[in-house]
Amino acid sequence: MFSNERHQRIEWGDCDPADIVFYPRYFAFFDVSTGALFEAMGFTLRYIRDELKGVGFPMVDTRSQFFKPSKYGDNVVIKSEVIEVGRASFSIRHRLFNDGDLAVECWEKRVWACVNESGSLASERIPDQIRLKMRNSQEA
Amino acid sequence: MFSNERHQRIEWGDCDPADIVFYPRYFAFFDVSTGALFEAMGFTLRYIRDELKGVGFPMVDTRSQFFKPSKYGDNVVIKSEVIEVGRASFSIRHRLFNDGDLAVECWEKRVWACVNESGSLASERIPDQIRLKMRNSQEA
Amino acid sequence: MFSNERHQRIEWGDCDPADIVFYPRYFAFFDVSTGALFEAMGFTLRYIRDELKGVGFPMVDTRSQFFKPSKYGDNVVIKSEVIEVGRASFSIRHRLFNDGDLAVECWEKRVWACVNESGSLASERIPDQIRLKMRNSQEA
Amino acid sequence: MFSNERHQRIEWGDCDPADIVFYPRYFAFFDVSTGALFEAMGFTLRYIRDELKGVGFPMVDTRSQFFKPSKYGDNVVIKSEVIEVGRASFSIRHRLFNDGDLAVECWEKRVWACVNESGSLASERIPDQIRLKMRNSQEA
Repeated sequence: MFSNERHQRIEWGDCDPADIVFYPRYFAFFDVSTGALFEAMGFTLRYIRDELKGVGFPMVDTRSQFFKPSKYGDNVVIKSEVIEVGRASFSIRHRLFNDGDLAVECWEKRVWACVNESGSLASERIPDQIRLKMRNSQEA
Repeated sequence: MFSNERHQRIEWGDCDPADIVFYPRYFAFFDVSTGALFEAMGFTLRYIRDELKGVGFPMVDTRSQFFKPSKYGDNVVIKSEVIEVGRASFSIRHRLFNDGDLAVECWEKRVWACVNESGSLASERIPDQIRLKMRNSQEA
Repeated sequence: MFSNERHQRIEWGDCDPADIVFYPRYFAFFDVSTGALFEAMGFTLRYIRDELKGVGFPMVDTRSQFFKPSKYGDNVVIKSEVIEVGRASFSIRHRLFNDGDLAVECWEKRVWACVNESGSLASERIPDQIRLKMRNSQEA
Repeated sequence: MFSNERHQRIEWGDCDPADIVFYPRYFAFFDVSTGALFEAMGFTLRYIRDELKGVGFPMVDTRSQFFKPSKYGDNVVIKSEVIEVGRASFSIRHRLFNDGDLAVECWEKRVWACVNESGSLASERIPDQIRLKMRNSQEA
């Protein structure tokens, strides 16, 4: 399956009075990683909107486990991989490494969403070209 | 001029490792206060969008001075008042009080924005009913 | 088991370009709700820090399912209840209702954390008075 | 005076329902830029804390003017420069460029803060080595 990784620096504003990342921020990090994964597959948001008439991939279910806190100034690596491709939904696993240790692991399931003829948001079959790309393994 | 006040509790996630509010959060607080000021004048966002065909009031200039830090668990009061009403812009002053002390003072200038005939965003004359209301003094 | 509920308004800054709440914000909402649950039990953070020598209850595992989006201006209710009390950890379920419908359901597991004699953070047995309170049912 | 620049990508979660950056996020961006400026001068937070016994540089006054909105996927450049060095305070100007255009300009004043002998936070004379570095011009 397709995978990607990106580097992120923990900023002062990501951290709380316990001097560690405020955990909701990790979900914002992983949201960036999912966007980066799509870009690495060659699909920018602009392409998805303009060419594929999709509107995004809203989250339906996500879970994170926190093994080790990260602090301001830490440089972490987030490795993201597609782990499941369904008809209208897909799942991604994100693993955040800090100094070589698995610090946070996240699993997420999203749906492929489009605006249908009646103007409301609905899930739709993931376009074949994206489905194919998701299933390709690739060195990030 | 019209004024309003609202109460806010400082949450854990608003604070940084120095154990005080991360200052960009104050701007988010004041943005909520400006929305609350409009609601107190009787103009909900829905009304502004549907009836007045406005799309909002983007910020063009804002300044905050920080006199005293606030911490997790503090209950603060934010007093907001219109201080200037122009043709297509207006200014608001927010003062955040913590335990009776002025802790943060903010001044902001926003424009009244609409989508014009060519589909792009442009500033427009503030509707008279809003202008009138802004100029009315009122006990919050 | 102990339960509590609180009301929250969805703010402009909570929402993303899809015009719905940016999902990481829900985790920030639930973090506030867990703090409110402790206060409703009679334990403020100050008490926990000063009297119980605890330093908080870091998240170790959390999962949210999203059933219905919420938008700017929506007033939602978050019902939170303790669902499990272990020796050094506890679990809470949050359910966010929008207009009567279950919109988001979250489950979280946290540990009771203290600074031990060597100065590092470690999980510890949850104090009896908190354990007892958590197990008491109560009308919120 | 010392200057630095860094690149930043506008993320989905930085933007609001108007499809542009939620303006409080810019202040978070500039806070990162000030940290990056110090690192570029050779002073990491760790050094400042451990060697200089400082605790940071809290904001006392900041103002931003917004000339042009930025959107999800935009790659912006933030140029930051020290513009004033006082005894215990300093000022920085940040300019955010989007596609070559000045989009946001920010001015900020911060104090050099330490924990004094009585344990409370107080402003202090900026250490000479930092003062010297701030006054050096340098190609970023």
